[in-house]
Amino acid sequence: MNADELFRQILNKQSFLCVGLDTDEDKIPSYLFKYDDPVFEFNKSIVDATHDLVVAYKPNLAFYEASGAKGLTSLEKTTRYIKENYPEILLIADAKRGDIGNTARMYAKSIFEQFMFDAVTLSPYMGHDSVQPFLDYEDKWVIILAATSNPGAADFQMLRTGSNKPLFMEVIEKSAQWADEHQLMFVAGATRPETLKEIRETIPNHFLLVPAVGAQGGSLEEVVENGINNRCGLLVNSSRGIIYAGNNEHFAQEARLAAHDLQDQMLNLLNKHELTIKQA
Amino acid sequence: MNADELFRQILNKQSFLCVGLDTDEDKIPSYLFKYDDPVFEFNKSIVDATHDLVVAYKPNLAFYEASGAKGLTSLEKTTRYIKENYPEILLIADAKRGDIGNTARMYAKSIFEQFMFDAVTLSPYMGHDSVQPFLDYEDKWVIILAATSNPGAADFQMLRTGSNKPLFMEVIEKSAQWADEHQLMFVAGATRPETLKEIRETIPNHFLLVPAVGAQGGSLEEVVENGINNRCGLLVNSSRGIIYAGNNEHFAQEARLAAHDLQDQMLNLLNKHELTIKQA
Repeated sequence: MNADELFRQILNKQSFLCVGLDTDEDKIPSYLFKYDDPVFEFNKSIVDATHDLVVAYKPNLAFYEASGAKGLTSLEKTTRYIKENYPEILLIADAKRGDIGNTARMYAKSIFEQFMFDAVTLSPYMGHDSVQPFLDYEDKWVIILAATSNPGAADFQMLRTGSNKPLFMEVIEKSAQWADEHQLMFVAGATRPETLKEIRETIPNHFLLVPAVGAQGGSLEEVVENGINNRCGLLVNSSRGIIYAGNNEHFAQEARLAAHDLQDQMLNLLNKHELTIKQA
Repeated sequence: MNADELFRQILNKQSFLCVGLDTDEDKIPSYLFKYDDPVFEFNKSIVDATHDLVVAYKPNLAFYEASGAKGLTSLEKTTRYIKENYPEILLIADAKRGDIGNTARMYAKSIFEQFMFDAVTLSPYMGHDSVQPFLDYEDKWVIILAATSNPGAADFQMLRTGSNKPLFMEVIEKSAQWADEHQLMFVAGATRPETLKEIRETIPNHFLLVPAVGAQGGSLEEVVENGINNRCGLLVNSSRGIIYAGNNEHFAQEARLAAHDLQDQMLNLLNKHELTIKQA
């Protein structure tokens, strides 16, 4: 799926919502434990209830690895279920990996082949040769951490370099040379709208994956005002705010209501910016 | 295990060797495939043949995740085997993780509890709150990527900041405030001896994990000259050079010979720097 195809899905669904499947055994409804694989049952229900409102799902691998081999089995079943039933949806591995070449190749094989993801989040700290093995999969996406939404982003990402730019901007400028906007996105947190604006000015054409709308406190409207481009150019993620909207046997309907609420705001914002189906 | 206990092990074994268990199904002797879990059998043989020569084992998680749930089972069996049979040896998860607080907690739980590791490598890009959940395990180690040994290290780690320091030095100076030398180490590649010297001057007391002696071309003697301190302060890693020294039914003996060769050099260098058992 390239950027044009992703945009087409955004127009069709009038949504640029990404749902984070950060599924935690300690937080899912207790009645699910009558099933062999409660985590998969939870994910399946969430996906079935929300697929027409979202353009991407983003399982965070940590939540699955925390349960060891069993967790990876749940993850594999989840990604296969999504691929088989909703093949148009972008499947993002929130992995934040970054390692030397031969190791990066192992991660790429695991994430893109074994788990069938379409995209992966990567940390830039180890530089180009830690990213290239993922870019070698030409039909897959790499999403590089630029400016994240957590407090610790201030520690290094915001450090000024010798050319008086924040480090995250050096990361964007350099890594934007490694691939074009059909294969490369950047993570840009919603908690700093002015940062989003600077990033959009530097890379007018790339998609940005924006976490931290909702639970972490960013405003959707501000994100759109500062980050939208003529292909939308935004994937806005919500995890806990959607998947844990309810906590009983109606959890999937509650998740749908929460997703619908965000999608409704997105529809209005897309309309405001004249990104409607007629325009495609 | 704190830094004093690690030093005691180094003196006892006259070795500061870490062996990277980057076990790749495509590279292990074919006769092992008669076993249910060839990767575990390989690791077990390597560990049994080398444990008296090494102070740390470092499985790189990518190599296990590449095989999905099956790979994690091999990893779990490997770490349990080492813990049960050689409890004095430091068990390092080469994970290079880095994620926001609630996700970092999941990784920490997985790595320290589920897989029983003593230490984990982390990427600093997301800052303090991405590292703290690991430091909350007070008897475990965090090993922060500072200056890595790959070519891409030049992309961002070597960038000069506004105060005219390379980024990796900003990482070291800031993160050294997060914990003391009994809980924090840094990765410092062996391919740049002058970097190692600068790092040692900045943090005289911390252990450094030094990859890239051997296959990636660093010199052990140069590493020691530039990085040693009065508690040794070095863990030098070799992966492929040891575990793939042989490729037939004698692979474990070949691995032992390769490990012994390095340990012998280490013994001489420790003697030269008067770090011998009498001194403890």
